[in-house]
Amino acid sequence: MIQPRTLKGFRDYLPDAMMPREELVNTARKVYRSYGFAPIDTPTLEYAEILLGKGSDETDRQMYRFQDHGNRDVGMRFDLTVPLARFAAQHIGTLGTPFKRYHIATVWRGENTQRGRYREFMQCDFDTIGTKSLVADIETALVIHDLMQAIGFEAFTVRVNNRQVLSGLLEKLDLAEKSTEILRALDKLAKIGPEKVAAEMQEAAGASAEQAAQVLKLAEIRGTSDEILSALDKLVAGSEKGETGVGQLRELTQAAAAAGVPAERLQIDVSIARGLDYYTGTIFETFLGELPGIGSVCSGGRYNDLASLYTNQELPGIGASLGLDRLLAAMEELGKIEQRTTPAEVFLPYFDEQSLQAYLKIASQLRGAGFNVELYPEAKKLGQQLKYADRRGFKVAIVAGERELAENSCQLKDLKTGDSQTVSLSEGAAELIAAIPKILRGSA
Amino acid sequence: MIQPRTLKGFRDYLPDAMMPREELVNTARKVYRSYGFAPIDTPTLEYAEILLGKGSDETDRQMYRFQDHGNRDVGMRFDLTVPLARFAAQHIGTLGTPFKRYHIATVWRGENTQRGRYREFMQCDFDTIGTKSLVADIETALVIHDLMQAIGFEAFTVRVNNRQVLSGLLEKLDLAEKSTEILRALDKLAKIGPEKVAAEMQEAAGASAEQAAQVLKLAEIRGTSDEILSALDKLVAGSEKGETGVGQLRELTQAAAAAGVPAERLQIDVSIARGLDYYTGTIFETFLGELPGIGSVCSGGRYNDLASLYTNQELPGIGASLGLDRLLAAMEELGKIEQRTTPAEVFLPYFDEQSLQAYLKIASQLRGAGFNVELYPEAKKLGQQLKYADRRGFKVAIVAGERELAENSCQLKDLKTGDSQTVSLSEGAAELIAAIPKILRGSA
Repeated sequence: MIQPRTLKGFRDYLPDAMMPREELVNTARKVYRSYGFAPIDTPTLEYAEILLGKGSDETDRQMYRFQDHGNRDVGMRFDLTVPLARFAAQHIGTLGTPFKRYHIATVWRGENTQRGRYREFMQCDFDTIGTKSLVADIETALVIHDLMQAIGFEAFTVRVNNRQVLSGLLEKLDLAEKSTEILRALDKLAKIGPEKVAAEMQEAAGASAEQAAQVLKLAEIRGTSDEILSALDKLVAGSEKGETGVGQLRELTQAAAAAGVPAERLQIDVSIARGLDYYTGTIFETFLGELPGIGSVCSGGRYNDLASLYTNQELPGIGASLGLDRLLAAMEELGKIEQRTTPAEVFLPYFDEQSLQAYLKIASQLRGAGFNVELYPEAKKLGQQLKYADRRGFKVAIVAGERELAENSCQLKDLKTGDSQTVSLSEGAAELIAAIPKILRGSA
Repeated sequence: MIQPRTLKGFRDYLPDAMMPREELVNTARKVYRSYGFAPIDTPTLEYAEILLGKGSDETDRQMYRFQDHGNRDVGMRFDLTVPLARFAAQHIGTLGTPFKRYHIATVWRGENTQRGRYREFMQCDFDTIGTKSLVADIETALVIHDLMQAIGFEAFTVRVNNRQVLSGLLEKLDLAEKSTEILRALDKLAKIGPEKVAAEMQEAAGASAEQAAQVLKLAEIRGTSDEILSALDKLVAGSEKGETGVGQLRELTQAAAAAGVPAERLQIDVSIARGLDYYTGTIFETFLGELPGIGSVCSGGRYNDLASLYTNQELPGIGASLGLDRLLAAMEELGKIEQRTTPAEVFLPYFDEQSLQAYLKIASQLRGAGFNVELYPEAKKLGQQLKYADRRGFKVAIVAGERELAENSCQLKDLKTGDSQTVSLSEGAAELIAAIPKILRGSA
């Protein structure tokens, strides 16, 4: 006998966990598609040299890497960005630009599991490649907004910034060469506070106290979008890059408002920097109003050149990634996940042993009308079957014994309230089909 | 520069290939759910000893296997049956029975690619575990039927057989001990013909010429379900097992007919055997009327004991697996796959550079009404944008220049016929929203 168990850092998804995942993925897919993003997929296994191409030391170490049957040095993908870069380099001639793709797929990292991290998880990315137009940035903001709304959140904020604003300021301050060090220090602002950040800027980036103060002044601007934009105008005045960045932030927020996004859901936040070096323009983070502490649930930004490791063709783009696991954890914490283990609403007990064909017919009629119906496979005691239905989370049960069936009727039972009503089965079960949605609405 | 390429036996899915895959998976999910099957997922990586537990030498050799970061001996799943067995053994106490699950996931096999096989492919399995009731067998047949119909096939046949019929006959003939050898010989019937099969039965199973003839007589029964059942009644008379098998076939076909399945779509075929040893009752194969040569596109059967390697608990069940890649190849060959590279129907050119906000508003109104809309991100020449729309496979374009927008109207263009009509944008673009479906229906 072999002990049934999973590897450390890996997990089974039972129906109660898998159903909300499927629903979330479906919602993401629907919203991405509504903006014309098309699905792609890439192989789980790739040549190690391709996956490691852009990687940091950390992802190198975390990658699952081995020799395949042909002694090739292969790895399992650890994100969807590197495969996208390879994919775009290889196929952009066929695909044409602008190319809008989404990719919802599993990735693997041999991470330390002590931080509550899993070694297998899903990413939900969308990107627009091959255009520098700000329209793509605006639509990225709209997609994030629509996505959060479609998932069922009311209170959330998409925070937007533009890397060129800071770059412009650093140009003005003659600190452009040190932008990486400045960014790294700024990224710690929330954690270590302005004084320590100023100290780090002076030490690591060789900034003067006055220069560090100017940078911090930028990062600490707060207010409405209009207030922030006015303050930024003054700070970057004279730097072409800075003015471009502020102009893009202005156009983006105005366009989003025109498209119907409420101001409180899209806010300029000059303090967000996003660690990654390769962002060059607009950057996004998204926070839940009820649970800001869990961090950004959808982040991304604009980059100048996606695939420079694999092609000479310049491929600018913008995209973002939905944090599926973080979002599910949040939804669970907020009670937004229904506790059920069946995708079916309607339970049909196998009550009278001789009437199987009648039950099959009822089930078939209801499925034809769009309901998900489970017929219990064994003619056990009714009470036992109803207990099963209750445990699974069914909403209604259709109870039909010999007598009801002889009258071509059934009992329609609301499993939440326990109420029962007699319903006719004639004319293709039309009365039953009409009655069920009323109960489902009541129990929703 | 790193050469962008995929590993042998692996492939990228571009949108034109990925969209039909997504649709097929969605259809499968929908049908499985309509019968109360719930989704699960298991890890890609498992302990090698678990995956190899039930494997044959061939799957052992084909499995991707390596040492992970903790020096564990791990493998990538090569099917969804072994993980299901491990999963059921581990969780059945929590899940309860009957447990109905579907599992749609990728599996990997380091196979010889010369036969046109891929090393990474998707399986779509559904199973009912923990009941011996024939109702589960009947529903499996119904699921396969509904699935094929929902995918869009009219002419197909689910072929059903029952292992107990042959077992009963072999018992009567005193050949029960040799059933594996007999099955192996019978499996070759279509390929090598009855004479060679008879010879093999005599050689490998020690059957007499008379016994071999009796077995072949069974395998060669043809006719309507009623004719086959009468013939089988006679052949197995006196064997309890054989009579049970024939009785189950009779009940299954009658029940399916009662549930509305046309007789030509569910046929008893005593020649199907299915190679795998572990089937013990009902078995299924499914063939396309227009392309029978590609083989079964959905197969499965009943087994006595799913997880005996991992638990002492007896777990009988029945299930089947949809051959996704085979089905997609067939649909492509039959012209059932639309050639498009966008999931959006509506194309919105960025025509007048100054009117971005108006375009964003139109797009948002249409998305709110359920349409998938792509706004072109750059204000290029209209002809260039419409060429892009044509290549991608959009159905309609909404052309609105400065003049149209000033009049709060737009041109709605049928991209198939080239026809255009002027449509008002007032009252939330109600006229536009009403007009688009008419064109979409026409181009469907």
